[in-house]
Amino acid sequence: MNRKGLAILMRTKMRPTTTPPISPSSEVGEIQSGSGSKNSDGNSSMALKTSDSLRNPEGDLKGVWESMHSAISMSKIDILDPVLKNFSEGYLKLSYEDRRKLLVILAREYDVRRNEVHKLIQQYLGLEFPSGDIMRETTHEEESLLSSFYRIERNLRHALQPKFEVLFEHLNTHPGGLKFMTGLRGDLLSMIAEEKVAALRALDSYLKEKLVTWLTPATLELHHITWDDPASLLEKIVAHEAVHPISNLTDLKRRLGIGRRCFGYLHPAIPGEPLIFIEVALLKDVARTIQEVLWDSPPSPESEATCALFYSISSTQPGLAGINLGKFLIKRVIELVKRDMPHVTKFATLSPIPGYMNWLQSKLASQLKIAEAENEDRTGSTFKEDILQPEEERALLKLSTEFTSGANGVEVMMNLLTSTNYEWAKSDKMVSVLRGPLMRLCARYLVIEKKRGKALDSVANFHLQNGAMIERLNWMADRSTKGLHQSGSIMVNYVYRTDKIEENAQLYFNEGRIQASSDIHHYLEKV
Amino acid sequence: MNRKGLAILMRTKMRPTTTPPISPSSEVGEIQSGSGSKNSDGNSSMALKTSDSLRNPEGDLKGVWESMHSAISMSKIDILDPVLKNFSEGYLKLSYEDRRKLLVILAREYDVRRNEVHKLIQQYLGLEFPSGDIMRETTHEEESLLSSFYRIERNLRHALQPKFEVLFEHLNTHPGGLKFMTGLRGDLLSMIAEEKVAALRALDSYLKEKLVTWLTPATLELHHITWDDPASLLEKIVAHEAVHPISNLTDLKRRLGIGRRCFGYLHPAIPGEPLIFIEVALLKDVARTIQEVLWDSPPSPESEATCALFYSISSTQPGLAGINLGKFLIKRVIELVKRDMPHVTKFATLSPIPGYMNWLQSKLASQLKIAEAENEDRTGSTFKEDILQPEEERALLKLSTEFTSGANGVEVMMNLLTSTNYEWAKSDKMVSVLRGPLMRLCARYLVIEKKRGKALDSVANFHLQNGAMIERLNWMADRSTKGLHQSGSIMVNYVYRTDKIEENAQLYFNEGRIQASSDIHHYLEKV
Repeated sequence: MNRKGLAILMRTKMRPTTTPPISPSSEVGEIQSGSGSKNSDGNSSMALKTSDSLRNPEGDLKGVWESMHSAISMSKIDILDPVLKNFSEGYLKLSYEDRRKLLVILAREYDVRRNEVHKLIQQYLGLEFPSGDIMRETTHEEESLLSSFYRIERNLRHALQPKFEVLFEHLNTHPGGLKFMTGLRGDLLSMIAEEKVAALRALDSYLKEKLVTWLTPATLELHHITWDDPASLLEKIVAHEAVHPISNLTDLKRRLGIGRRCFGYLHPAIPGEPLIFIEVALLKDVARTIQEVLWDSPPSPESEATCALFYSISSTQPGLAGINLGKFLIKRVIELVKRDMPHVTKFATLSPIPGYMNWLQSKLASQLKIAEAENEDRTGSTFKEDILQPEEERALLKLSTEFTSGANGVEVMMNLLTSTNYEWAKSDKMVSVLRGPLMRLCARYLVIEKKRGKALDSVANFHLQNGAMIERLNWMADRSTKGLHQSGSIMVNYVYRTDKIEENAQLYFNEGRIQASSDIHHYLEKV
Repeated sequence: MNRKGLAILMRTKMRPTTTPPISPSSEVGEIQSGSGSKNSDGNSSMALKTSDSLRNPEGDLKGVWESMHSAISMSKIDILDPVLKNFSEGYLKLSYEDRRKLLVILAREYDVRRNEVHKLIQQYLGLEFPSGDIMRETTHEEESLLSSFYRIERNLRHALQPKFEVLFEHLNTHPGGLKFMTGLRGDLLSMIAEEKVAALRALDSYLKEKLVTWLTPATLELHHITWDDPASLLEKIVAHEAVHPISNLTDLKRRLGIGRRCFGYLHPAIPGEPLIFIEVALLKDVARTIQEVLWDSPPSPESEATCALFYSISSTQPGLAGINLGKFLIKRVIELVKRDMPHVTKFATLSPIPGYMNWLQSKLASQLKIAEAENEDRTGSTFKEDILQPEEERALLKLSTEFTSGANGVEVMMNLLTSTNYEWAKSDKMVSVLRGPLMRLCARYLVIEKKRGKALDSVANFHLQNGAMIERLNWMADRSTKGLHQSGSIMVNYVYRTDKIEENAQLYFNEGRIQASSDIHHYLEKV
């Protein structure tokens, strides 16, 4: 191929065909939310996609059920490979509806042995635990009583393990079993999102606990992903980059080249496919816009870098939702960069704020409704807030005569933000009027708005629980359609101060306290 | 270094100084026994060895207790590294006695939350599980009842987890934590062997379950150990080879060279130190003596090999006693060899019979006692057996006039077997007289003598549970002092028939049935 041909190839838009579509659930925010409830678009299960085209005769459900039953009923020795192969291959060929039926059967027919539990509870309640000083020598009788006590407790613990646990344990020793189970959990999450079935939720919660145990950081290998890696691995990166999609080979090569790093966590049982990966830019200073990260050309020399900027973190396995591998990945990458490049002293992110516009627009809408009701009833509402400050109100109303309509500032703002094609972002005038209220309200959204004591924004919650602090808001930091749609162009820098990570994480975990810079607090004073 | 100097170095007897002594508990038989009760010589804990020389002031126990308490009490986020470091380093500096105190505290003070368990049991007994057809649509009320039911069950399961579980989980995410816990379990096994303390046994049984979960085959990497591996890894092989000690560098190099293979299982959290390793010889036929395996020179060409002979399997971690990693290792090695060398079709072992002489001598001793009692009482005993056949009795008595003394065949045999320096093995005459009864009784020991339905011999039990069959007994197969002492020179070939492994394992597991060749059955007919 000549030089020109190669250049064309490298710039050709990439459309992976053998890999699943990028689903919302592979975004870091989704990984962290843990509820799986946002998978309702049904995109989350890759296995599921392939199956619908291969719909099988009805009889198959029974066959798969039989191999599932064998796998659970056979004794605990290693004679299961053909049975597990039948089961997992059979499962993948089932239609979505049949999978759902099978998982309901698994959850309910192979549940906790409740008769056994009741029997053991009766035995347990019949014994009294010997009390007294723990360091005192125990008598022979006490020791034998203690032995029975511990034995019954252990038996009770085992009896409370559902019978389907055996299937999961067997699958975990089976080649490809771990990968299969993450796919199966992807299905489960879709099913639960569609309809809350208690048995399926119990199955999911159990499987999630098992996956957490198997995917301990000790078993994960940190891999520096480079242009020398196999195409089959790089293809996974392209397919699963959920934050800033990779447009072509040139884009991919740049992200793996000078001034950039990409690290993935690999599990020995799922070779060649990082479970999660992070993209890092080595910069002279903390970047303010994603444009300068994705398209700085040429990149600044690595020897001049003082900042490692995490600009993207993506999971490849929807079935691992709610299992925080990112926390360990970030920690290990910081350690690695610190060791290899002592001149890099700042560890920051340039992060999206995926829930901001959603929150703001519903806030504005509810204020408009309240105002409407007030006009009719002429009574004051306790839910009314002064969302806008007087000078913001004035500036917006002044805008309205020129560009758009609205009876008050809130209405003007609402109309601007929801206008097609984000016209406001193309007008310097509108951009400058919106900047004030949008930045101020964004600080409020990130620091003050909470759900069960945690930051409402999923990405904020992710970095805060890992021990980061909120450093800076950046206006017009992401001008892409997605950026305008999600966060009105704003991006945020979270900073990881290595000496404060543990303290911050602890404060956030225990008290929901969020660390933020003085810049951020400055916005909040105006709220 | 000149050629001669190198030759001398290579033949120098190796005495690893930085590694622990080879302890009986690292032999495969011990790994499989699972009871840990044979560690009573106190050699099993390597950490322990170093500690006694570093005895610390008494105050340390309190300090280590404090860091242990912090590690358990702090919230579940990742802020624990310094605490865990303090705890694990502090523990290793404690004297054996203080470690024992600390582990008793851990087992008893951080036990199951019994008040919580009792509270949940009351809630649990108050609910009734909705019955009926599992595939039927459930009502909204049933779903909400089911939800509470599953929730209480999950909470009960969690409450039945001792508080010390948190410590183990944290340690597992901590660098070096897994290795530390195997050392800690080594200590526990020693302590339990000395004195049966119910709390320590409960702690051990719990820790063992956790280790089994963490060390699933999926997380273990099969590594082909070669002469190109780092010396630090090869040193571990020398230190832990428990079956046929490696005498010098030439011996080691041969075991890694042409016609030989050595494979180890590595866990990512314990780098450079195989948890278990197996040594394989590629031979023209199944070997009859260990001498020809260890000292065949030159080795036969690999292209002519038809048999892969497993002649040694050793564990490096006493703290993993009772956790069968060997089963998976053998299976994977068979797969690998089959793939790489299709001309190799026989997979066999040449194995020691570590418990044979022990069993035989106590059998002989009890028969002598019974005979003595009979002579005094002149009453027949129901425990009397005809251990020897008439012609064996005659041959032994004939021997006795020439070489040794004894009133009957059993006494002559006993005297021969217990004579110093195994003199009998040096006399062709005695060797030929003993061969008949020793081989016959060995077949009986391996196939018929059982304990709880399993083979009495630990190595036999190991291979049988993995699906092997007993193929052949080999006379004068191990003339070393150890070989004469343990099994009167006999070694056994177990054979893994790849098409029968699963069936054999299943039959042995379910019914204790032992598969043996017609040769072996031939011996048994004479019993």
